[in-house]
Amino acid sequence: MQSPSQSGASSGAAELAGIAAATLEALRAKAPRVHCITNTVAQAFTANVLLAAGAVPAMTASPEEVGAFVAMSGALLVNIGTLDRERRVAIDTAVEAAVAENIPWVLDPVFIDRVPFRAELAHDLIERGNRALRLNAAEFRAISGADPTPRNVAQYARQRGTVVALTGATDVVADATRQASVSNGHPWMAKVTAVGCANSALVAACIAVEPDPWKAALSAVLIGGIAGEIGARHAQGPGTFPAAYVDAISTLDAAAIASHARVQ
Amino acid sequence: MQSPSQSGASSGAAELAGIAAATLEALRAKAPRVHCITNTVAQAFTANVLLAAGAVPAMTASPEEVGAFVAMSGALLVNIGTLDRERRVAIDTAVEAAVAENIPWVLDPVFIDRVPFRAELAHDLIERGNRALRLNAAEFRAISGADPTPRNVAQYARQRGTVVALTGATDVVADATRQASVSNGHPWMAKVTAVGCANSALVAACIAVEPDPWKAALSAVLIGGIAGEIGARHAQGPGTFPAAYVDAISTLDAAAIASHARVQ
Amino acid sequence: MQSPSQSGASSGAAELAGIAAATLEALRAKAPRVHCITNTVAQAFTANVLLAAGAVPAMTASPEEVGAFVAMSGALLVNIGTLDRERRVAIDTAVEAAVAENIPWVLDPVFIDRVPFRAELAHDLIERGNRALRLNAAEFRAISGADPTPRNVAQYARQRGTVVALTGATDVVADATRQASVSNGHPWMAKVTAVGCANSALVAACIAVEPDPWKAALSAVLIGGIAGEIGARHAQGPGTFPAAYVDAISTLDAAAIASHARVQ
Repeated sequence: MQSPSQSGASSGAAELAGIAAATLEALRAKAPRVHCITNTVAQAFTANVLLAAGAVPAMTASPEEVGAFVAMSGALLVNIGTLDRERRVAIDTAVEAAVAENIPWVLDPVFIDRVPFRAELAHDLIERGNRALRLNAAEFRAISGADPTPRNVAQYARQRGTVVALTGATDVVADATRQASVSNGHPWMAKVTAVGCANSALVAACIAVEPDPWKAALSAVLIGGIAGEIGARHAQGPGTFPAAYVDAISTLDAAAIASHARVQ
Repeated sequence: MQSPSQSGASSGAAELAGIAAATLEALRAKAPRVHCITNTVAQAFTANVLLAAGAVPAMTASPEEVGAFVAMSGALLVNIGTLDRERRVAIDTAVEAAVAENIPWVLDPVFIDRVPFRAELAHDLIERGNRALRLNAAEFRAISGADPTPRNVAQYARQRGTVVALTGATDVVADATRQASVSNGHPWMAKVTAVGCANSALVAACIAVEPDPWKAALSAVLIGGIAGEIGARHAQGPGTFPAAYVDAISTLDAAAIASHARVQ
Repeated sequence: MQSPSQSGASSGAAELAGIAAATLEALRAKAPRVHCITNTVAQAFTANVLLAAGAVPAMTASPEEVGAFVAMSGALLVNIGTLDRERRVAIDTAVEAAVAENIPWVLDPVFIDRVPFRAELAHDLIERGNRALRLNAAEFRAISGADPTPRNVAQYARQRGTVVALTGATDVVADATRQASVSNGHPWMAKVTAVGCANSALVAACIAVEPDPWKAALSAVLIGGIAGEIGARHAQGPGTFPAAYVDAISTLDAAAIASHARVQ
């Protein structure tokens, strides 16, 4: 243990951990509704992660009603993982409702590194003012044309006026002026489907209760990474990991965040 | 332990537990096909709950074939949780087939408290003669305009000529003349997605083997609540609970039902 | 232990187990992309099975982009479990891309025994040259008009020029000239949704790294059956089984395959 006067980094870490703890507490106190347009592979796991964190998910993607669902939510997630025609219309309607009602929304540009069709869709969506963007290294390369270094992530965040949460072995969370890197997590998080997608939903949940989107995104990344470490201790492999991860989120508290956070 | 002569309630409880045990035995003996038009969030968990109970699920929602699937099933579940255009056509076709073939069907009016669009759809469906309705308190308020008291539930069931299974901390199962309340269950059942949806599918499975829809709905609610209690003992949180719940359903028997049932 | 000279069957078993071990090693070394058009019930479990085996799944079924996804994959799975209109167009486009790029593809004709609509679709697809077909006994009867005896399976494989992997209590894997039967597995594999669907995806993954489709299908069936036996030892019922199954796949190795394989 170092005293704050001895180490700005440690002091910063405690402060950043405190942000995540406060956001988690607010999530549990306010139980915000989070509307998720997300791919069918990730839906069930995402819903359970949100419920464990304290949020209330809804997942319909019917164009006729998605606007009404978004309007009564604290935040919106747009994940483009499975894209049928109706879902694309629903995304358009949902973003329109979010912008009209000033409801924060988060974009997860799944697989934009794979096909131009998706990269275009993601670019168009980013023009419409998402509050945060959560993606992996390959997706960052596709959307920014740059390597996923902390400097490039910060530059892209500044240019686009959005918070960027880039997750991987080390996560980077940046906006125009602030940057943090998080070293929590476990390798099984990359061996299970929908962990990244569910983390994007957690960013949306945090933004519903923490108006500063950088603090919200940082909170979600820290909560996810720490729960991954704790969950892995109670799992025997990537099969038993997802359930243990949800258990860990459901019992996470300020003390566990403070003792586990590896952030600067 | 009280003798039947000392307590009508206890005697009634034993009789009601016996109904659930007989229905579960019939499920396992007859392995009925249950067609489920249900939301994509709930599909996998619902299928596993049905399989654990002894039923054989099918879940296609393609308008071209759903009528043929329904016609060869013992019961139909209509859950409106995720609604795309094709699924709405499939619901219409499926209900038409069920009515034409006199196959009992169950409605789960998910989220009708959220948007008028859904409330209208649910009202139209109820006109077509569902055998049972499973919902939560908010959904009951939306569909009936009344508070979810046992008296109001019974009145609504009488008016609409359907069995109502209202689940929550205490469950109420009512038709025009009979009413039971069930106090089994576990708080994690409300912290995991699709537990209610799967219970609606279990109502459909029970109706496939028990022609009295009130007995069938009561059986499903009791089986679900008791399995929730047993499952929770083998789980560490809401993440590990769903698997333990399915395990508990798969081994539930008359003795466990008799010893756990809190019903009157 | 018998020496090879004493038992051709044992010797054959060791050789067949060695094929599966080599395929699994290649899967982990090459991490092939496997595109899966599969039903929404099976998607999450299938993705986790593929990831545990070493493959990289993608699951979009949007006609506009599925061709591009298939073209960059090592294999394609076509599972007809849930069929909406757009998914049927996507299947057509995906198969066209696979044929054009000479990418092997596998068909899982789910529920063709139930409705003529599906049987026709499956027949049309088989005309287009799938490398392997994985199905159960009822589906084999529907597609071939014959009982699922090893002789009939071999005859059908010869006639259609495809590998057939028929799974059940005993699995049969046949092409025009070779045949093996596998007795591994566990009864819970038939009590959990999507185990068969995920095994079809595993056939596709194996075909992506093993150019001989008979060896690939045999490998997938052996890996699945052995992981089922190992997984069941760590599960308490059909609810906890799927996670244990995925754990078992993730740690399976040549030694475990050799000691468990019951194949001839």
